[in-house]
Amino acid sequence: MKEEKNVAPKAVVLLSGGLDSTTVLAIAKAEGYQCYCLSFAYGQRQEVELERARATAIRYGASEHLVLRGDLDRIGGSALTTEVAVPKGRSFVEMDAEIPVTYVPGRNTLFLSYAMAWAEVVGATEIFIGVNALDYSGYPDCRPEYLEAFAKMANLATKAGVEGRKLQIRAPLMEMTKKEIIQQGVALGVDYSLTHSCYDPAADGRACGGCDSCRLRLKGFAEAGLTDPVLYQD
Amino acid sequence: MKEEKNVAPKAVVLLSGGLDSTTVLAIAKAEGYQCYCLSFAYGQRQEVELERARATAIRYGASEHLVLRGDLDRIGGSALTTEVAVPKGRSFVEMDAEIPVTYVPGRNTLFLSYAMAWAEVVGATEIFIGVNALDYSGYPDCRPEYLEAFAKMANLATKAGVEGRKLQIRAPLMEMTKKEIIQQGVALGVDYSLTHSCYDPAADGRACGGCDSCRLRLKGFAEAGLTDPVLYQD
Repeated sequence: MKEEKNVAPKAVVLLSGGLDSTTVLAIAKAEGYQCYCLSFAYGQRQEVELERARATAIRYGASEHLVLRGDLDRIGGSALTTEVAVPKGRSFVEMDAEIPVTYVPGRNTLFLSYAMAWAEVVGATEIFIGVNALDYSGYPDCRPEYLEAFAKMANLATKAGVEGRKLQIRAPLMEMTKKEIIQQGVALGVDYSLTHSCYDPAADGRACGGCDSCRLRLKGFAEAGLTDPVLYQD
Repeated sequence: MKEEKNVAPKAVVLLSGGLDSTTVLAIAKAEGYQCYCLSFAYGQRQEVELERARATAIRYGASEHLVLRGDLDRIGGSALTTEVAVPKGRSFVEMDAEIPVTYVPGRNTLFLSYAMAWAEVVGATEIFIGVNALDYSGYPDCRPEYLEAFAKMANLATKAGVEGRKLQIRAPLMEMTKKEIIQQGVALGVDYSLTHSCYDPAADGRACGGCDSCRLRLKGFAEAGLTDPVLYQD
């Protein structure tokens, strides 16, 4: 029997194991891509995210799942990689007011740079990333103008770009609210019990419910008229 | 006695331990910067480069020297990170003709992304990189238009950029020939016996003399009327 070659286009999907990136993976699969999932162990405190990313990649039939260690913890400068306290119970107005301490310098740039390198090696034409400008405008590297500048740089950096095989950066959640993201994911059959969003979970993996990420997530489920299936601490 | 604060501007210097980046470090020091040297163990075969980088950072009084492991070896796609044979004895015309197999997908983008993150954390306003367009035009991520695109992206990616503290990418060797680089370095007192350029050294660290990098280096010393002080295999 002759083996058929899978001619579906390839995409590198940045997969943190959170609600947004899991929804993005479902979108990429629904669009027919062979998905090469890329996750990072960058010294973040929530290693539980990586476990969820592994389960999610298997569930969605990823062609490959690569977990890279990026040494961001040795650069420091963020509450996600050092021992700075994660803020709790902030209002949505407070979240919008300034760049939060959970901002990791260079994080999306490093993620996208590794994705760009891997895309070139496997021959992927797209990178999918779950950034979102509406619900969370505090991170400079989540804005459309940033992603456009990255794509422009990437197509000057690579052999593929120079030879005219342009790489696209796809951020399908960019203009969506958390409510809309959840509704889209549910429509695509996403099992959100596999996802993890909390910046400061308990040792058993249960979410804190009070950090910015938990609060935005809970608000999204409430607005969608759904119950968040993950476990929260009392 | 009151401790005086060092108010010299800070720069992150990408330091491979090669001839070019060592010259760049000397230039940054001569311009009065506090130098934060950044090196990478990215699965490259020539770990000897890193030993030279360590010695060089100490010799030039770097404020800090950080060696990061970047996991590029797990992405693959290059003769520098996998077991593809390094080409030997190619003419300079052959070198110019195409993107060589020693091209590492995403290498400079990853190096600059880590440098950008570290610059933000330490408050550096410049990144120095030893890329050079004239002697070696085969790498897409060594061109001025690439560096300009990276700087534009970086200033959209970071808190510093958003707040108006613009980061500059400095490539002082960009328009120089290898001969001119060596002459500049000698004028600044660079000890080139500490540098390493060979893509395929012997186990004892001696250079092969035949790879593209050795050939360009030897040509530069010859044109400058100098003898290369590093050891070559017979």
